[in-house]
Amino acid sequence: MKINGKATRSIWLEPDGWSVGILDQTQLPHRVGFLRLTTCADAAHAISSMQTRGAPLIGAVAAYGVALALRDDASDENLERAYALLLATRPTAINLKWALDEMMAAVRNRPREERVAVAYQRAKEICDEDVSINEAIGRNGLTIIEEIAARKKPDERVNVLTHCNAGWLATVDWGTATAPIYMAHDKGIAIHVWVDETRPRNQGASLTAFELGQHGVPHTVIPDNTGGHLMQHGLVDMAIVGTDRVTAKGDVCNKIGTYLKALAAKDNNVPFYVALPSPTIDFTVDDGVAEIPIEQRSAEEVATITGRTKDGRTETVTIVPEGSGVANYGFDVTPARLVTGLITERGIVAPSRDALERAFADHASRRRSSEAAE
Amino acid sequence: MKINGKATRSIWLEPDGWSVGILDQTQLPHRVGFLRLTTCADAAHAISSMQTRGAPLIGAVAAYGVALALRDDASDENLERAYALLLATRPTAINLKWALDEMMAAVRNRPREERVAVAYQRAKEICDEDVSINEAIGRNGLTIIEEIAARKKPDERVNVLTHCNAGWLATVDWGTATAPIYMAHDKGIAIHVWVDETRPRNQGASLTAFELGQHGVPHTVIPDNTGGHLMQHGLVDMAIVGTDRVTAKGDVCNKIGTYLKALAAKDNNVPFYVALPSPTIDFTVDDGVAEIPIEQRSAEEVATITGRTKDGRTETVTIVPEGSGVANYGFDVTPARLVTGLITERGIVAPSRDALERAFADHASRRRSSEAAE
Repeated sequence: MKINGKATRSIWLEPDGWSVGILDQTQLPHRVGFLRLTTCADAAHAISSMQTRGAPLIGAVAAYGVALALRDDASDENLERAYALLLATRPTAINLKWALDEMMAAVRNRPREERVAVAYQRAKEICDEDVSINEAIGRNGLTIIEEIAARKKPDERVNVLTHCNAGWLATVDWGTATAPIYMAHDKGIAIHVWVDETRPRNQGASLTAFELGQHGVPHTVIPDNTGGHLMQHGLVDMAIVGTDRVTAKGDVCNKIGTYLKALAAKDNNVPFYVALPSPTIDFTVDDGVAEIPIEQRSAEEVATITGRTKDGRTETVTIVPEGSGVANYGFDVTPARLVTGLITERGIVAPSRDALERAFADHASRRRSSEAAE
Repeated sequence: MKINGKATRSIWLEPDGWSVGILDQTQLPHRVGFLRLTTCADAAHAISSMQTRGAPLIGAVAAYGVALALRDDASDENLERAYALLLATRPTAINLKWALDEMMAAVRNRPREERVAVAYQRAKEICDEDVSINEAIGRNGLTIIEEIAARKKPDERVNVLTHCNAGWLATVDWGTATAPIYMAHDKGIAIHVWVDETRPRNQGASLTAFELGQHGVPHTVIPDNTGGHLMQHGLVDMAIVGTDRVTAKGDVCNKIGTYLKALAAKDNNVPFYVALPSPTIDFTVDDGVAEIPIEQRSAEEVATITGRTKDGRTETVTIVPEGSGVANYGFDVTPARLVTGLITERGIVAPSRDALERAFADHASRRRSSEAAE
């Protein structure tokens, strides 16, 4: 998508053909900073310091981190060291481990002199595969937006509400929830996005608003409290959100607050869609509310907020009284009954066990056999 | 309620017997400041600058403002000037006009030499009446909390969720939504309050958390996104909120985001109560969603946030990217079907036309006859 008017991915090979460029996302939305990674340690630091974030993007950065490591020293020992260093940056990120395993499989049995080229090739493929999946999600979601647009009067916009950032900044390009939005916009459909600010970390206000603005998509930032009122008054045509995990029966685990928007959508007959790459479906979990443990994060994220002062400094301020307790649950679970459809790279799938098994029989059986083997 | 361990009202007569003390609420929650009002202009400034806020409290401050004015000059001309000056501070505040009309009626036909004493007396009564109403709301709401407490195991707390600040800081004492909570706590019932931070103005984090903390009531500040998750997991026994206006059929207009919590309460069988003094019922409005216009407030309230820096300064930071639009709807309407009951000074009333007319036949008929006369 575009930054400063120029089509950009969130990770790229620099003109020198070997060093790796990424956006420094810690400076967003107030400053667009770029980083050049030249060593495996650079890549590890970028992930652990959150300069780069989002499951698919972390996997891509880690893949290039292996390539950079092998460029210094293509030995088995160094390959193992790179794998361990990168894996430790975000030990619970499933996609990170997947990308590292892919890299390991690609280079392990190759002669040392071929390893660097093979690693760069596989890292590039991992990036391109992510882009392809998101493009497919975008094309499938676009059909829904086109149907809504077809019912609009000439001067009316399609209003989409989204929560958190499932945007291109979390992937290599397009994003998941945002892919249908960008495609609709690029096709000339008049679209406008209501962006939930997404307290406490404000990924909506700081990342989604930033990326939509840079690409030229009309949007409005709203407090998370606002979506219900908008839906009551016909100001939302559809909601699209991302997800961290979808269960075998279609429950959706996503950023805290998603459930409240899904309730409001149901109460006002607003279609509520979830966009995801199919590996996000976890066939080992059934009832999301009962089975998925919800991470509690630091109180600091709620008690303080960081922004830009009038004179351009970055400042953190406390907004909770001294002595007051704070709770910070990272995610919630939206029951399948509130979800209209899952927008995947294979099409739009109903949030039900039958539909998910039919569409992803290969994933479901693979997951079950790996469970049986454990 | 208590501040620094000492029982305090939000407005009081100073020991000199004529000047008026209030809390400076603009400095909360990080600093407890007190103000001494000695002139009508002081009272007007305290209201217009939001040093004092909350419909009942503004009325009380304005009432004392009239008394202070008459102390300087008890003429009809000065009485009219004081009325006009105080009314202009918040022209849309119905309670402010009501209090000023009460003061006018009390002093107008009195000899000048009696006016000051009469004015101080009526201002004191206005304060005491507010406290009495809130005490009655508290007693009525307490019965609900006691029923829940009776079903708890000895080591379990009653968990109440509230949104925004319908606390004693907005009234003379007790508050509305908080009155049952303070009474339960003072009675020794183990109670804990989930405090929605209430973006964008954060009245929950800065005022409700502050007043609960000062009075010693256990509480936890949460992002507005959190309540649904808590209710799904049995962590909320009841919700109590305040309201700006209840319609003839029981729809509830309150701070933006209230509707989303009411939806979650319904979805999880959590009782959802609204606490209000009966003049808040507007028998001229029927369908809240269709008929109540929702104020749109300044974008600044969403785009920036004010807090305390590490070195103790008050700082405002911008948290939305430059160029992004912002919307700021002040209120939303919760349909009566989502409300369990209205906690009023006359008892707990079902949110339905029949029940409201039965309980408040005097208000309803008065309102209808004044409409007919217009």
